[in-house]
Amino acid sequence: MSSSTSRSSTWNKLGDAAYAKSEKVSADLVALTYGSFVREIIKDYEEPDQVNKELEKLGYNIGIRLIEDFLAKSGVGNCSSFEESAEIISRVAFKMFLGIRATVSNWNNEYNSCSIIFEENPLAEYVELPPEYSNALLYSNMLCGVIRGALEMVQIIVECEFVKDQLRGDDTNEIRIRFKEILQEQVPWNDEE
Amino acid sequence: MSSSTSRSSTWNKLGDAAYAKSEKVSADLVALTYGSFVREIIKDYEEPDQVNKELEKLGYNIGIRLIEDFLAKSGVGNCSSFEESAEIISRVAFKMFLGIRATVSNWNNEYNSCSIIFEENPLAEYVELPPEYSNALLYSNMLCGVIRGALEMVQIIVECEFVKDQLRGDDTNEIRIRFKEILQEQVPWNDEE
Repeated sequence: MSSSTSRSSTWNKLGDAAYAKSEKVSADLVALTYGSFVREIIKDYEEPDQVNKELEKLGYNIGIRLIEDFLAKSGVGNCSSFEESAEIISRVAFKMFLGIRATVSNWNNEYNSCSIIFEENPLAEYVELPPEYSNALLYSNMLCGVIRGALEMVQIIVECEFVKDQLRGDDTNEIRIRFKEILQEQVPWNDEE
Repeated sequence: MSSSTSRSSTWNKLGDAAYAKSEKVSADLVALTYGSFVREIIKDYEEPDQVNKELEKLGYNIGIRLIEDFLAKSGVGNCSSFEESAEIISRVAFKMFLGIRATVSNWNNEYNSCSIIFEENPLAEYVELPPEYSNALLYSNMLCGVIRGALEMVQIIVECEFVKDQLRGDDTNEIRIRFKEILQEQVPWNDEE
């Protein structure tokens, strides 16, 4: 077994274990609650671009809080690289929070950009986009925000984009993640010492 | 074993089975999503009374959709009485959707009003009410709406009120349900036949 396969299998197991020990609620409940939230944001902002931004912002605020819970419960240490982070998101975090496993693929040559792909999307159950939003609304854009927010808390700065969405007729769901930088922890310089 | 104890035990089992076979997501995710929704509603409506109404309305719209799923997956037939409905809500529906079991108590003498009591509230994890809302906001009022909406779809009209809330310092969470009427299905009168 290659070391990469063995790591993947370890992460899968950590994901299953974290999911098993999490408090859980029905996916239908979260789908309908999220749907109500999206409807409220649409009422408030109307413009799909602005709605997408707000959904991402919502996710960011959730991500910066979920990461603590994730690190405490998942048994995953700090990620050592962007590549490892992407695998951990898809194999551990997706499983732990959404009950589904995603896969990482479509790495670019520089290995600083990849896709997280998932077939089932618990947020989008029951949803049909109204025609005026069917091309422009990134319904599950919250997930992009969650990933960005959570990674930022472990000093990894990324951009995320929902590039394929089954709600819009695509064959799968795909979030593109682009690595930007690793934040250096700032050690304050103190001239008294 | 009395017939009422035996029915309770059957419902508990139905609740466990329905929960086991439901698709589930992390309770933290629903808590944070619901929290964002409440924050948005507060931004839009400000007045706690109006916020409480909107949260109830949200729940109502969720309840009228969840009931179908509930009847399909739970194995519970149509409820034959208000008393039975209250038990089914607390032993089957709370378990299936929220992962917790509630208890029914505080029946009035006429047996048309009772309380659903629960210690854990997955919606209210992570929440601290801002001081200006701590007395007036019914944070989890969505649940009242869900119950009202779902029962209306099986022809049972009730009023629900969140009367105790641990977020407001109460010792438990308590939803008071008052039975109003059973809707008679309207058979349209057709003078051609």
